[in-house]
Amino acid sequence: MSAPSSSAKARVAFKEIPGGVTAARGFRASALSCGIKNPEATRLDLALIASDGPAVTDAVFTTNKVRAGCVRVCQQHIRSADARAIVANSGNANACTGLQGIADAKAMCRGVAQALDLRQRQVLVCSTGIIGMSMPMPRIEPRLGELAAALHPAGSDEAARAIMTSDTKPKSFAIEVPLGRGRSFRIGGIAKGAGMINPNMATMLCFITTDAKLGRDELRRAMRHAVDQSFNRITIDGDTSTNDTVIVMSNGASGMPQIRRGSAESELFRNALHKVMMELAKMIVADGERVTKFVEVRVCHARTQADARKVAKAVANSLLVKCSFHGSDPNWGRIIHAVGYSGARIREELVDIYFNGLIACKGGLTAKTSVTELEKVARQPRFTVTIDLNLGHAEDAAYTTDLSQAYVDFNSSEYSAAVHARRQKGLA
Amino acid sequence: MSAPSSSAKARVAFKEIPGGVTAARGFRASALSCGIKNPEATRLDLALIASDGPAVTDAVFTTNKVRAGCVRVCQQHIRSADARAIVANSGNANACTGLQGIADAKAMCRGVAQALDLRQRQVLVCSTGIIGMSMPMPRIEPRLGELAAALHPAGSDEAARAIMTSDTKPKSFAIEVPLGRGRSFRIGGIAKGAGMINPNMATMLCFITTDAKLGRDELRRAMRHAVDQSFNRITIDGDTSTNDTVIVMSNGASGMPQIRRGSAESELFRNALHKVMMELAKMIVADGERVTKFVEVRVCHARTQADARKVAKAVANSLLVKCSFHGSDPNWGRIIHAVGYSGARIREELVDIYFNGLIACKGGLTAKTSVTELEKVARQPRFTVTIDLNLGHAEDAAYTTDLSQAYVDFNSSEYSAAVHARRQKGLA
Repeated sequence: MSAPSSSAKARVAFKEIPGGVTAARGFRASALSCGIKNPEATRLDLALIASDGPAVTDAVFTTNKVRAGCVRVCQQHIRSADARAIVANSGNANACTGLQGIADAKAMCRGVAQALDLRQRQVLVCSTGIIGMSMPMPRIEPRLGELAAALHPAGSDEAARAIMTSDTKPKSFAIEVPLGRGRSFRIGGIAKGAGMINPNMATMLCFITTDAKLGRDELRRAMRHAVDQSFNRITIDGDTSTNDTVIVMSNGASGMPQIRRGSAESELFRNALHKVMMELAKMIVADGERVTKFVEVRVCHARTQADARKVAKAVANSLLVKCSFHGSDPNWGRIIHAVGYSGARIREELVDIYFNGLIACKGGLTAKTSVTELEKVARQPRFTVTIDLNLGHAEDAAYTTDLSQAYVDFNSSEYSAAVHARRQKGLA
Repeated sequence: MSAPSSSAKARVAFKEIPGGVTAARGFRASALSCGIKNPEATRLDLALIASDGPAVTDAVFTTNKVRAGCVRVCQQHIRSADARAIVANSGNANACTGLQGIADAKAMCRGVAQALDLRQRQVLVCSTGIIGMSMPMPRIEPRLGELAAALHPAGSDEAARAIMTSDTKPKSFAIEVPLGRGRSFRIGGIAKGAGMINPNMATMLCFITTDAKLGRDELRRAMRHAVDQSFNRITIDGDTSTNDTVIVMSNGASGMPQIRRGSAESELFRNALHKVMMELAKMIVADGERVTKFVEVRVCHARTQADARKVAKAVANSLLVKCSFHGSDPNWGRIIHAVGYSGARIREELVDIYFNGLIACKGGLTAKTSVTELEKVARQPRFTVTIDLNLGHAEDAAYTTDLSQAYVDFNSSEYSAAVHARRQKGLA
């Protein structure tokens, strides 16, 4: 017996291309080291992404009620939809910094706007890093002109590096979508994750650009759908952060006509945006803090979509399940108990659980598969756990990781260490 | 500035007494080693608690939809309220064992009922241990008569030991409550916890006996209230198990008149029951798997009770907060971000956070207290984090622990290890 396969999804011919957030025509990026991450300023920590011409932009922000100064400013600026530049720093989250934090975020937008001859509201600002410390503005503000002057069409990789915190590698992905008759549009992006990654957004920044031409409503619909299907399905430790932001800028530089709602191009754009976000989301999970396993949790034959999602989330977030992944332990008992407390309608006696294609639990009872065979699957760095509820027709998936001793170690002294380090290095 | 103090609660003169679950008059207990935990049968793993005379009994069970065979049988038996014996084993949870599990649970009740001359429905049954393996009934059933014959009025400690799994010590607490004119009633209990401890019940068993005289409705009301205020406020790893059970048996052997609803004795009984459950709940948290810290998370001045509870739960369950407790790191930024995603109504600019009496965050911003002073608090094995929302008058508390590397280690290979060990030792 093998695991039930996923329902077929419309396949589109995407061509993966290099270039990340500058793969789409008419976008440039740049980055600098200005000493936010370390006083020696040896690490990139300030990035800029800008469209050469007008753009239609939308964004999705954290649902956390504690919101960083930069998030508050972005939420104001995004209202007019014509933002065409993003300035972002790592090393300091500008969160829990009060009115000063909002003033600092605005000053970053103002500096970039002056350099690029834009209105302040056309610039968005994102920060990631430690919470509760004021932004080192004297290190940032004087460098904004230099940052704008450095914009170039191959700047994506530097920008991707400049937004990293505890990420171990930059995250970048882009595709070109053919439209026939030699025309195409491109979508690409960069992201940062690591730690505090949870559905409903995480300490996660993702900047996506496209040269497709869209109205704001169409962009918004496509974006909400894609975020829901990608970033809201990943989990590392179940926490949601104060700074999470996904921004999509579209500038129409592909020369294609504007995408209309319900058209074939609209469907194509949605799938392409979903593809880019999903790839970036998976990169974030796989690069989670001290992660050694990447596990897809698939739920099928749930009674409703909401039920499928509840089960996927409960299993993906269970500490005990994540500990067992770490130990390559095919502990289906912990999985079924998370299924049981998920809040979804389930019938214990109908639940089947698979590790890749191997059945571990059949009808709520231990299956005949040998534990040694199941361990072989659980020992792989990537595998899929499929939970078949055998009740209905809905399915869903979540992407999760193991929980390692190193994760605990890594996360056990961040604040004191940062405060003491800043004091020693004169960063106050 | 010091942390706001808790609202005054009616204090009652409770006298702590020895005797645990046999402290109340008319109850006896016993325990045996029958080789469920280890084939050499060197560890106690089967316990019995019984009232000498008729009893009024109520129970609260796991909310997990995957329920062990023993839980299903208990839920049937408890309907008639005259249960007066509890048989419990450790080493095997009898969960995910299907119809055979239900039959095995019934057989345990039947064996005890025969030995004690009771009806089968007057016996409750609880199991704790590994999930998904059938009960070793040939080791259990022949010993039930011996177990019943061994009942004695000082058997509490043995019974407390026999229900332990990864607990490091037995958990027992009892009090005597004076009623004036030389009369009194007693309440005492035993519990086991460790791992998978979460509000809404956990892999947790708690058996409480009292010689107070109560009707079923009065017992139920007091019990629901006390469980809600105690066991539903503790958390170790956010998982809920398939086997959790709290049982209270009252036999009236104190000779006092039946407690009436709304009477002074009713209030006294409620407070006493709450006291016993709270002490046992705290023991469970403090003895959680590989725990090195016990942290009380207090929330005050919330707009509503529900909001206070959401905040306490979100903070107590946050992995990142628990990691920082482990590292003695007074990381209030992680605490406030959990406050932010809790779902409660909060205003970031009003939130104050204290470590014991020391303020770490004032009005959502970093307070002036030195980190070195805050670290001194966070280094203690027990401390209190107080979150003052400054919005209303409601308050709540949760009890949590750190998350240690040893916890992850301990939980990373349970299933394979158990399966391989059983195979080696011929337990199949």
